[in-house]
Amino acid sequence: MMNKILNDNSHRRYNILTGEWILVSPHRTKRPWQGKQEQIKIAKSKSYDENCYLCPGNTRANGSVNPQYTKPFSFVNDYSALLSSVPEEHYNKGLLRAKSEKGICKVVCFSPDHSLTLPVMPIDDIMEVVNLWIKEYKELGSISYINHIQIFENKGDIMGCSNPHPHGQIWAQESIPVEIVKKTQNQLEYWQKNGAGLLSDYLDQELSHKERIIAENESFVALVPYWAIWPYETMILPKRKIGSIDKLTAKEVNFFAAMIKDVTTRYDNLFQTSFPYSAGIHQAPTDGNNHDEWHFHMSFYPPLLRSATVKKFMVGYEMFADPQRDITAEQAADTLRNKPSKHYSIT
Amino acid sequence: MMNKILNDNSHRRYNILTGEWILVSPHRTKRPWQGKQEQIKIAKSKSYDENCYLCPGNTRANGSVNPQYTKPFSFVNDYSALLSSVPEEHYNKGLLRAKSEKGICKVVCFSPDHSLTLPVMPIDDIMEVVNLWIKEYKELGSISYINHIQIFENKGDIMGCSNPHPHGQIWAQESIPVEIVKKTQNQLEYWQKNGAGLLSDYLDQELSHKERIIAENESFVALVPYWAIWPYETMILPKRKIGSIDKLTAKEVNFFAAMIKDVTTRYDNLFQTSFPYSAGIHQAPTDGNNHDEWHFHMSFYPPLLRSATVKKFMVGYEMFADPQRDITAEQAADTLRNKPSKHYSIT
Ligand SMILES: O=P(O)(O)O[C@H]1O[C@H](CO)[C@@H](O)[C@H](O)[C@H]1O
Ligand SMILES: O=P(O)(O)O[C@H]1O[C@H](CO)[C@@H](O)[C@H](O)[C@H]1O
Repeated sequence: MMNKILNDNSHRRYNILTGEWILVSPHRTKRPWQGKQEQIKIAKSKSYDENCYLCPGNTRANGSVNPQYTKPFSFVNDYSALLSSVPEEHYNKGLLRAKSEKGICKVVCFSPDHSLTLPVMPIDDIMEVVNLWIKEYKELGSISYINHIQIFENKGDIMGCSNPHPHGQIWAQESIPVEIVKKTQNQLEYWQKNGAGLLSDYLDQELSHKERIIAENESFVALVPYWAIWPYETMILPKRKIGSIDKLTAKEVNFFAAMIKDVTTRYDNLFQTSFPYSAGIHQAPTDGNNHDEWHFHMSFYPPLLRSATVKKFMVGYEMFADPQRDITAEQAADTLRNKPSKHYSIT
Repeated sequence: MMNKILNDNSHRRYNILTGEWILVSPHRTKRPWQGKQEQIKIAKSKSYDENCYLCPGNTRANGSVNPQYTKPFSFVNDYSALLSSVPEEHYNKGLLRAKSEKGICKVVCFSPDHSLTLPVMPIDDIMEVVNLWIKEYKELGSISYINHIQIFENKGDIMGCSNPHPHGQIWAQESIPVEIVKKTQNQLEYWQKNGAGLLSDYLDQELSHKERIIAENESFVALVPYWAIWPYETMILPKRKIGSIDKLTAKEVNFFAAMIKDVTTRYDNLFQTSFPYSAGIHQAPTDGNNHDEWHFHMSFYPPLLRSATVKKFMVGYEMFADPQRDITAEQAADTLRNKPSKHYSIT
């Protein structure tokens, strides 16, 4: 953002996808930190861990045995938050409103190798992960009662990940979640008004400014969105307006995998640590409607702020009022852009 | 909630204040936890700590010296996220939108005694805290450019609190934050349609059901809202429709303080630990409009789930889709209702 006054002073920025505002306090980066320090877990090195319930051949808590998988492998979560067998029920009593919710939760192991993470996997192997996501999106999306599919990864124990084996999750369900309702609405309004994609036009603008771009390849761009909340939040965006991952060509899958590797590598290089985050793909609902307005994107919400041990807390003010950040999106993009795209652990 | 089917199965509940939904998975409480364990900090015992920048008589980072205060004491935050001297600026360039934001951030020390927390303070001393909040709400609210005042407390280092001295914060600002915009809108719609307060009618319904009520006194009720997100989230609600804390009578201030002590004591008794949370008061904006629709309330968002060391992570699915919980609001209310209202440390 070229505006000098806002760059140096507290201001609010508007999120075009959610229609909500965030508070930015650029002058506050010098605040000393006397609070909680996270512990750094020593990087695991074993390719196979006999106590890991995700490693090939091991028995899970419910007695199922994992196959000797050699490629990405998915299965129904043993502790699914959503089940497919829920009786339909609507509850409306005075001011209490609820409805039953059916769904399917899956776990996606990215690799049989317990010691890996996305940034240290070869691009070809990340492509296999993307292809499995596509397969799941198609299969789950074809189930008549499934109207939304959330693909995500929680990485690192400070992001609530209870197992270091490289894996993500998919929660598919009847209802369209709050975040997706907002993003659908704002993209649809723009589409109807301008006959153009909101994120296509946004991407054009970002590519002309350059200051929030981190990396670019033939089909994808990685950037820090203007309205980013988390200190080093990023978004991977296809250049072409593609509503969902099943529309990607084989070539685009390749460029998507390369961009995932690029961004997660810069993350690890930032504090020379296995960088924790929650990542997720936002894409068109599978509710049978034509979602021409949708431009899919993958977002990374990483908590670390100053070092491998000091994170940003989204508490108090942020829970009750607005999200808040100190370093600006432009500063974060600059830092990430200048990190090598070769992983620090590779000598 | 009396509905047996929903009680046992995954369902979504509607938040009447924000207009958003949350996902509840009651069947999932038996999930084993192999993830991150928080460390328990040993309770501090010193009434005065010479290294604490909030203790009376001590020098702060910016050189200011705290007075020898004997009652709750407030001052402008040395590292304010909002400043009052920001030049006005509006930025609108293509799809980028921002505006400058003026404000005032204050720190409120609840007690000169470094070793205390709200639950172990006498009710009379909590009343002094409430009275200081009222004074600040009035004074800050009378500044013409201040349209919203967020009073909150982050308690415990897992809630990003960097100093154990009992204290909270106040962030007062020009704009009305996202959460308050939503709550104003939903209360206003209800008020215009029904000529009654949304939360008054809700409270009547809760008092007739009883199953989410934790405690009640002459002027206040503490309950787990039907749409609660955090495992042991609670709300303290005045019985009378009062829009903001400056409208409380002296008697009501007393009952409010007593209810704060009651709820925070039950929290500490739950896992026999100094229970971490973010708490905040949502009340009428100070934008000069008549906010008859507003019914103020104080909410507690505590992260602990199963014990003093295992918290609920709002990550992945929750960040990208909908908030999610396992234990139901009714189970949480039942547990809290059955905890003694006398603090476990008092023998
Ligand atoms: O101001 P503090 O206590 O240093 O900071 C804490 O509360 C603030 C307001 O909720 C947050 O923005 C910070 O992330 C948190 O660490
Ligand atoms: O399913 P997991 O990995 O055990 O659990 C993790 O991810 C879930 C989905 O984001 C969250 O609901 C849990 O709080 C978190 O600990």
